Amino acid sequence: MVKPIKLYTWGTPNGHKISIFLEILQLPYEVHSVDITKNESKQEWFVKLNPNGRIPTIEDPNTGITLSQTGAILQYLADKYDTDLKYSYKYGTPEYYKTLEYLIFQVAENGPIQGQANHFKVYAKEKIQYGIDRYINDTKRIYGVYEDILSRNAANQSLYLVGSHYTVADFALFGWANRLERLEIDIHQWPLLSKWFTKLAEISEVQKGLTVG
Amino acid sequence: MVKPIKLYTWGTPNGHKISIFLEILQLPYEVHSVDITKNESKQEWFVKLNPNGRIPTIEDPNTGITLSQTGAILQYLADKYDTDLKYSYKYGTPEYYKTLEYLIFQVAENGPIQGQANHFKVYAKEKIQYGIDRYINDTKRIYGVYEDILSRNAANQSLYLVGSHYTVADFALFGWANRLERLEIDIHQWPLLSKWFTKLAEISEVQKGLTVG
Repeated sequence: MVKPIKLYTWGTPNGHKISIFLEILQLPYEVHSVDITKNESKQEWFVKLNPNGRIPTIEDPNTGITLSQTGAILQYLADKYDTDLKYSYKYGTPEYYKTLEYLIFQVAENGPIQGQANHFKVYAKEKIQYGIDRYINDTKRIYGVYEDILSRNAANQSLYLVGSHYTVADFALFGWANRLERLEIDIHQWPLLSKWFTKLAEISEVQKGLTVG
Repeated sequence: MVKPIKLYTWGTPNGHKISIFLEILQLPYEVHSVDITKNESKQEWFVKLNPNGRIPTIEDPNTGITLSQTGAILQYLADKYDTDLKYSYKYGTPEYYKTLEYLIFQVAENGPIQGQANHFKVYAKEKIQYGIDRYINDTKRIYGVYEDILSRNAANQSLYLVGSHYTVADFALFGWANRLERLEIDIHQWPLLSKWFTKLAEISEVQKGLTVG
């Protein structure tokens, strides 16, 4: 019997990556909202859990593990709870590492760059055109790379980033792709990403995950 | 007999992370310089290896695996070649996931933010004070988080990010900490990071890795 995993989160793309994957894996979890608009993630009690002071963070009473960084949390959940490999590939295989490469591409480039684009376009108090252009252009470049990645998986109708099923690399990207509208970037300009996005958005667990935070 | 791993790289912090770890593991490798100042990483032959068009990338003839993203490459090298766990922790343990968390913190926050600081302070053709301040301040915040992380490992004299020995989390951070001077940020302002940095910089394999590219 799996005990509920504690999920400290807020309704952001990074938070949704984790709630979506918990739903997909049909794991029990308890949501602890951390209101980042009130700087709750910088409070001492939370920094004890995550020195970086950012959501999401999980505490898993089944293993005693406390973990932050979406890339690490997704990998952990896949390793520990996707033991029948429905949403991952066997440890040590080429597909396992390709999934890790694209997951890290998401957390190390897509997320940070799209996040900076949000900052300059939506949140910054000064309008800095240089910053808007720099990060919007790089965000578009990155989705172009994902279009290329999907094109390399024609053997599987370009439906998944890696192999013949969804993985954490797909769910991580979906969390951010779902917020492209905010930048007035239309994901449907990329034909393969358009199909990929539409199919993922139809999954009921994905829809439910997007309501959490 | 391990066949030489092909390393496509250039003398950047991300390139050095991998050459340092290959040296640490005493693995044979062949350096293929990819001159990013001539946009060689955007050429078709390289994009076939890495759709993102960025160094470093490895091709391992021992497994047939081609891999990009430093976080994925470091994890792969540790999994595959550090089987006696000198620089990693056993798969599935709390220390394994804490190492992954801090490795991902490096590739998802330290690297991208310090990279943007480099852009605005060193490379940008226009001087945008807003960008300089934004990314210099966040770079300092992130090193402050690493200082906190080291402080939590007092049981091991705060010499390592996780547990009782170096891991990929340390080597990844070192690659970027080594370039803080460029931002006129002195790592010795953080007492624990100062000691951590000095000790790592003395290791001959680390010094050798820094010459590659």
